[in-house]
Amino acid sequence: MASSSRSSGPPVGLGQDSMDVDGPAPNGSANDASPAPRLRASSMPATLRANAYHVGYVYSSKMMSHSCVHGHCEQPERISRIFDILNQNDCLKKMKRLPIRRVLREEALLVHSQALWDKVLALHSLTDQDIADSEAYYNDLSLYVHPTTPYAAQLSAGGVIEATLAVARGEVKKAFAIVRPPGHHAEPDEHMGFCFFNNVSIAAKVVQLKSTLKRILILDWDVHHGNGTQRAFYDDPSVLYISLHRYEGGNFYPNGPFGSMTSCGEGAGLGYSVNIPWPEKGMGDADYILAFQKIIMPIALEFSPDLVIISAGFDAAEGDDLGECHVSPAGYAHMTHMLSSLAGGKLVVALEGGYCLDAIAASALAVTRVVLGEMPPQLPPLTASEAATETIWQVSAEQSKYWKNLDPKVCEPMEELEQIAISLPELLKAHRQDYLFRTHGMLEVPLMSVPLIERFNAQVSCTPDIMDNDTLIVFAHEFGNLAVELDSVMFCNVRQEHSYLIDCSKELLTWAKAEGYAVLDVNVYPKPFPKSKLKHTDDYGGAVMVYLWDNYVQLTAARRVVLVGHGPGCNAIMSLIAQRAASVLKTVEGVVQVVGLHNVPTTPPNTPSLRQWYFDNSIVVVPSNHPIFHDSKTMKKHGQVFRIDEEKPIKLIIKAMPGIQGFIKDKFSNASVNGDA
Amino acid sequence: MASSSRSSGPPVGLGQDSMDVDGPAPNGSANDASPAPRLRASSMPATLRANAYHVGYVYSSKMMSHSCVHGHCEQPERISRIFDILNQNDCLKKMKRLPIRRVLREEALLVHSQALWDKVLALHSLTDQDIADSEAYYNDLSLYVHPTTPYAAQLSAGGVIEATLAVARGEVKKAFAIVRPPGHHAEPDEHMGFCFFNNVSIAAKVVQLKSTLKRILILDWDVHHGNGTQRAFYDDPSVLYISLHRYEGGNFYPNGPFGSMTSCGEGAGLGYSVNIPWPEKGMGDADYILAFQKIIMPIALEFSPDLVIISAGFDAAEGDDLGECHVSPAGYAHMTHMLSSLAGGKLVVALEGGYCLDAIAASALAVTRVVLGEMPPQLPPLTASEAATETIWQVSAEQSKYWKNLDPKVCEPMEELEQIAISLPELLKAHRQDYLFRTHGMLEVPLMSVPLIERFNAQVSCTPDIMDNDTLIVFAHEFGNLAVELDSVMFCNVRQEHSYLIDCSKELLTWAKAEGYAVLDVNVYPKPFPKSKLKHTDDYGGAVMVYLWDNYVQLTAARRVVLVGHGPGCNAIMSLIAQRAASVLKTVEGVVQVVGLHNVPTTPPNTPSLRQWYFDNSIVVVPSNHPIFHDSKTMKKHGQVFRIDEEKPIKLIIKAMPGIQGFIKDKFSNASVNGDA
Repeated sequence: MASSSRSSGPPVGLGQDSMDVDGPAPNGSANDASPAPRLRASSMPATLRANAYHVGYVYSSKMMSHSCVHGHCEQPERISRIFDILNQNDCLKKMKRLPIRRVLREEALLVHSQALWDKVLALHSLTDQDIADSEAYYNDLSLYVHPTTPYAAQLSAGGVIEATLAVARGEVKKAFAIVRPPGHHAEPDEHMGFCFFNNVSIAAKVVQLKSTLKRILILDWDVHHGNGTQRAFYDDPSVLYISLHRYEGGNFYPNGPFGSMTSCGEGAGLGYSVNIPWPEKGMGDADYILAFQKIIMPIALEFSPDLVIISAGFDAAEGDDLGECHVSPAGYAHMTHMLSSLAGGKLVVALEGGYCLDAIAASALAVTRVVLGEMPPQLPPLTASEAATETIWQVSAEQSKYWKNLDPKVCEPMEELEQIAISLPELLKAHRQDYLFRTHGMLEVPLMSVPLIERFNAQVSCTPDIMDNDTLIVFAHEFGNLAVELDSVMFCNVRQEHSYLIDCSKELLTWAKAEGYAVLDVNVYPKPFPKSKLKHTDDYGGAVMVYLWDNYVQLTAARRVVLVGHGPGCNAIMSLIAQRAASVLKTVEGVVQVVGLHNVPTTPPNTPSLRQWYFDNSIVVVPSNHPIFHDSKTMKKHGQVFRIDEEKPIKLIIKAMPGIQGFIKDKFSNASVNGDA
Repeated sequence: MASSSRSSGPPVGLGQDSMDVDGPAPNGSANDASPAPRLRASSMPATLRANAYHVGYVYSSKMMSHSCVHGHCEQPERISRIFDILNQNDCLKKMKRLPIRRVLREEALLVHSQALWDKVLALHSLTDQDIADSEAYYNDLSLYVHPTTPYAAQLSAGGVIEATLAVARGEVKKAFAIVRPPGHHAEPDEHMGFCFFNNVSIAAKVVQLKSTLKRILILDWDVHHGNGTQRAFYDDPSVLYISLHRYEGGNFYPNGPFGSMTSCGEGAGLGYSVNIPWPEKGMGDADYILAFQKIIMPIALEFSPDLVIISAGFDAAEGDDLGECHVSPAGYAHMTHMLSSLAGGKLVVALEGGYCLDAIAASALAVTRVVLGEMPPQLPPLTASEAATETIWQVSAEQSKYWKNLDPKVCEPMEELEQIAISLPELLKAHRQDYLFRTHGMLEVPLMSVPLIERFNAQVSCTPDIMDNDTLIVFAHEFGNLAVELDSVMFCNVRQEHSYLIDCSKELLTWAKAEGYAVLDVNVYPKPFPKSKLKHTDDYGGAVMVYLWDNYVQLTAARRVVLVGHGPGCNAIMSLIAQRAASVLKTVEGVVQVVGLHNVPTTPPNTPSLRQWYFDNSIVVVPSNHPIFHDSKTMKKHGQVFRIDEEKPIKLIIKAMPGIQGFIKDKFSNASVNGDA
């Protein structure tokens, strides 16, 4: 309810600079700044401090002094534009202006090392020449520096502290810290990513120390992972850090695995770091809101914070070129509304990144309106993207180890039940071997290499005519697709009557046999060996294919070979082609890659003749929604792309089968002509 | 923010009756009441009607005239107590009092039949003698009646209409209709369950007709299923009906399957009825809030209502003897806060049930405070109960057929993939048969009855010594427990390396063989035949056990038999005991029932000697959290109850195995002594 708009005028003026309340001018050695007021939470009941304002803000244009001579997206106007739009929309007059001040050394040292403090403060004495000379060094850290940088960084951190303490004192219920430079990338020992001090982390530590608010939720919706904040509380169960960010396998800033969904904290803090790592750009309101509904709010229900701090970057906003996402102002309003329900409404919003001035202004206005009590706008009907849905599911499963309100529960560790458990791959392998023998008379192909036996034993079969038949289909695939419904979420129990194994090879094998082609059938799904997880980078599939090529295919009568890959088998096929290019070119007439939604494997870049051959003789079967259709470069490295109008990978090979059969028949007939020439 | 408390005083007085604005006195034939003001939404922009109030309410003490001479929990004070507490807490003076009036006949007929309208209005002419004479009839409908009933019921419906239209006109943003009698059980053609007209349904129809608000979410948190409301919109996709209620297999009022999770609407309305049916009493804040987070809010995101109406019964509140649940005022506040974020904040709260005056007053106050803009109170750390977690999971899976924001996705219909699919039970059965033969030399027992062959073929095995061994263990169980992790939520794919089959029989079979006992192993999980689902009431397990008893066990040399049931096998064992009591008593030395979390099967009540025998010779193995420990009556019908300190059913039989083995050995040794005697 924005009804407070009818209250008497605000006690603060409207001029911009006139509102800066931080006394001292920029001063590099300013760690002797006037000390922050000491607060003993118990001595200051909220009722005594009740005033007309429910919401406060901190702001100072002095933080605009930190700027880059060459221009930079982390520009001074980021905060003035937010200030201006809030002012123009009559928000500021409903908010109490809170004092801003520099962070104290002892406050910063709650998070940072003395060395970092000294390093940042020393920037004050930089000359223009120093700046020019150190540009490369700072570029590597994604930083620019200026003699006023320490002052601005100290004010930024001090501003978030004051906003947080005002909420802790009950002086205001909520507060918005309109500050820069941002803080969430700043690690205990390093400044990086436009960040010098970790404003939010320091404020959280200070408020824990100085008030009764102990359990803090830091919600970081900046499009980048807040590595610094997560690091500051990695082993600390009193601060729950939740981040939504672009991750892309660790290839989005700040890069590496720290922002992955399995990076969940350590020691006592295990489970108190929650990463929701988007696998791609383009996420929007539905994706963010659904992550809040299904992960963040259920965890918050279980954690019950005393205070919520939003690390509010606005670089996931529609229009931000760095973030390339599509969160609307209304989307930010809804997220703010959800977080407002926590901690009895005690909420601090602290600006982090966000580089499109229009977008951050509109987003900050929407957030502020909700903070002031307005209802968020009605959104159109929204559904989350498939990528977001999968990510939310996987994070939920991962975090269900630590949070009872999340599911599905992950399976029990195998060890405890070993005496009566049978691994599913073993069971399916036995089934498949039995099926191939009974239905097609296919025989197990022995492997003579210990590492391959350990991983692929009983996973390779051939038709009995393999030595004599001159046409051979080599079919590399993984296990059938086991589709199940879970009956119970607590015990991972399968609703067996609604569950089935899809064996995509069945139809191809039956057809090949009828046509009189020999088949070498390879299940490239490696057994976990030893019990640790296999790294996906290890090319065991390629290794088994090369082994079979050298020790079987090359010894058979087959002079006309078609290679068929399905799912992960496609990479194994491509690995074989790359490693045995010469003999493959001699005997392989065609390649079929039923990639489904997997990445389309690419030909080795350094062998143009192989690439041309592959272009001329391969077909790639993908569903109509495959990303390759947005990637003309990869498209050119393949021959025919069969775009099948079917989004479910499971049905792809069925729908594509007539085309695949036609291609293979064609290749084998042409081959015999070519063979004669 | 409740800052509007500082505004000038409200234009309405505080006296109770003085605020009744409905002119005419009670009048049974009152369908000629003054017509409601006609509203054309387009002609009345919200801005023209803007006033000092964001929130309105309707109330009239005239609705208290409907009362029961014998006293009744649906008592007149239900509304006055709410009125009083809102008044005492300064809420009413921040709210606009909206006019109340009687529902018009043509409005009621948008939902109800003319016959029902006439039936209710005719109550006006009831004499005391009529009331006494018809008591049994109305009791059957869970109703009481009074000559003023039609007037009160018309006011109640008219009040909800006026509250809703005030929101639709933009006159207020939110409104609370403090009305009775309630409405949500009233069906189009029948009054029932304390309800005469379906207030909320009528209001929804009227507002759709008279305003631009077309997509309406009715959220029914009354502890009973709102059968009448669901019926009114069952085939209507413009009104999304969501209900949380005690269901208990259809055994809680209003009973039957209409409130089940598979009752999802029909025709165009399929997917627009969402039932969250609690399987037991005792649900609390965490259960309700998690249902909101994981089901209701994701569906609402996808539906995007123009208006939200809460069918706000407060009988799930802590302290309500009918509801026996534990929702706190803070819990209601949080649910209200979540719903406030929808439809741009357009919300109507309409009272339904709730019978503890203190509880409804406190709950209504908490809801009203949030409606007025206050933040909900901080809740302690909360986790949902296991029963609620399972229900939420199952509803989510069911509704994922209709709502993209929900998961897990249910498996594709089998038919489309039949050519390449293998049902999981078939696969597991083949595995088990193979395993029993390879490991224990066990043989398939042929079944000679067509219905049994259809359902249990290849599911019965025995050790080769069954005809000659005088000790026999009959082991009835279902398939092994398949525990899986899902890799992809979109395609139900199993993360096979983390998945395994738990075959609880392994250890028992190995041990029995080593001890020299013969074993008859029966998988009582019936194959679906024909493809329709089996009804759980059909005792196929019992039938196959009796068949095996008559045709095999009775013909063997075994004179000392122990029956072992596991999971659903326990019921099959009990069915055998009941059907073949005489011969069972002669040869069975002991019974082991590893029931896990299933219901403990009970002995036939009409055969005391059998019950005594069972009491003396059976052990029941249950986890420490089994409900039997709250049920001393059932406890007494069993012998030893093994309470195993293990909540996971999957591990129960492992932990219990030493005890089970000791019991069986003991029985077999005693038996030989007894046999000699």
